[in-house]
Amino acid sequence: MTYCVGIEVDEGLVFAADTRTNASLDDVRVHRKLHEFEFPGEAAFVIMAAGNLATTQLLISRLHRDVEEQRPENLRAYRHLFEVAEYVGRVLVDSQVKCGSTDPGHDGINTQATLILGGQVGGERPGMYMIYPLGNAIAASPETPFLQIGESKYGKPILDRIIRPQTGLDDAARTAIVSLDSTIRSNLSVGLPVDLVLLRAGDLRISHRMRLAADSPLYAEIHANWSRRLEHAVASLPSFPWEDA
Amino acid sequence: MTYCVGIEVDEGLVFAADTRTNASLDDVRVHRKLHEFEFPGEAAFVIMAAGNLATTQLLISRLHRDVEEQRPENLRAYRHLFEVAEYVGRVLVDSQVKCGSTDPGHDGINTQATLILGGQVGGERPGMYMIYPLGNAIAASPETPFLQIGESKYGKPILDRIIRPQTGLDDAARTAIVSLDSTIRSNLSVGLPVDLVLLRAGDLRISHRMRLAADSPLYAEIHANWSRRLEHAVASLPSFPWEDA
Repeated sequence: MTYCVGIEVDEGLVFAADTRTNASLDDVRVHRKLHEFEFPGEAAFVIMAAGNLATTQLLISRLHRDVEEQRPENLRAYRHLFEVAEYVGRVLVDSQVKCGSTDPGHDGINTQATLILGGQVGGERPGMYMIYPLGNAIAASPETPFLQIGESKYGKPILDRIIRPQTGLDDAARTAIVSLDSTIRSNLSVGLPVDLVLLRAGDLRISHRMRLAADSPLYAEIHANWSRRLEHAVASLPSFPWEDA
Repeated sequence: MTYCVGIEVDEGLVFAADTRTNASLDDVRVHRKLHEFEFPGEAAFVIMAAGNLATTQLLISRLHRDVEEQRPENLRAYRHLFEVAEYVGRVLVDSQVKCGSTDPGHDGINTQATLILGGQVGGERPGMYMIYPLGNAIAASPETPFLQIGESKYGKPILDRIIRPQTGLDDAARTAIVSLDSTIRSNLSVGLPVDLVLLRAGDLRISHRMRLAADSPLYAEIHANWSRRLEHAVASLPSFPWEDA
């Protein structure tokens, strides 16, 4: 499994992803799921992937090749982010091995993948899309300022409660880390380290990147003291009627 | 769907359940899922149910009848909570309409239910069990001090971070309400009002009961200010390296 979250606030974009892949409960490995595409001064994109690892690695390799060979369709060939999302969707569809459930060798294997694409093309505002296995996509919006793929439920409540378009970019990044940590605590298939990338609006390059392991100060602090902060918050809620007595 | 959580701390037991039932996205109704069985000075039990409503209503009716008719097997007939769990498990199995997937009228209907049973029998410590559709059960423990049934993922992180055997009973109850609220915000199939019951160790009766609606002070406060408390907690986490500049 996997957990990736992308956040779109007024100040820019936050991307955070875990790095654990597994085939059932064993064959657990570390693989990067957050991929940067940087064309400084021109455009910058981040793609996060959940699903079949062979599919997503092929997709990323093809995206790099298309840019290097300056093919007619490549990440630098578009003036609008939605066109980039359409192109990435086409490459995603082409990267999924097609096999029916009755094909020999199928064995119930699912070759699909789901992506979060975010970034900024010069002259446009930053934006973020969830790209489905069929190649179609939906955009984040002020009412839905974050997108999640993979094991998304445990990490959703903190995002629901905090993320607004007005949330500062760094606070949005801290919230993303808490969301990842909540998921890592509750689900064995999501694991450290965590990749974090920030794209500040107008930078047109990766503004900040960071890999957080268990001994990173921010992560260690969350582990040490986040529970205590929540305990204080719970204890400061109103009393029950029987406590007044 | 449903969301119920039971918490076992040193001071006693907390039970919290939503009240929404639905058949797909329509036919949404309010039904009680938390049921009290009180024999003051002798024993007290609470049963929460997730799953097929016909099954759980039949189960509860049978449990009441067995006590009223003083049948050989009834809630007052046991000296140990694990025996009560075994008995309730048997009644649960008998209350699930048996039908195979090829039977006429099956239509993919699932008649199973899952229960949380908690309580105290005089002379024993309080305890809590999750009872599965097969009638077997597992107990809460100091390492696993809470049990959840139904739509459990959204509400689990706050419990994971706060609940310990040393947590006070009222704080455990406040945490349960936050856990319910997180789930209600994220999942349409879980809804207000929320039933809350506390069993303080040694009381051998329902210590406190409460039904919380949107206008209950505690619930209104969570809605109004819980997000702000979390925002403060996030903002007080360590800065990123680039923020120091």
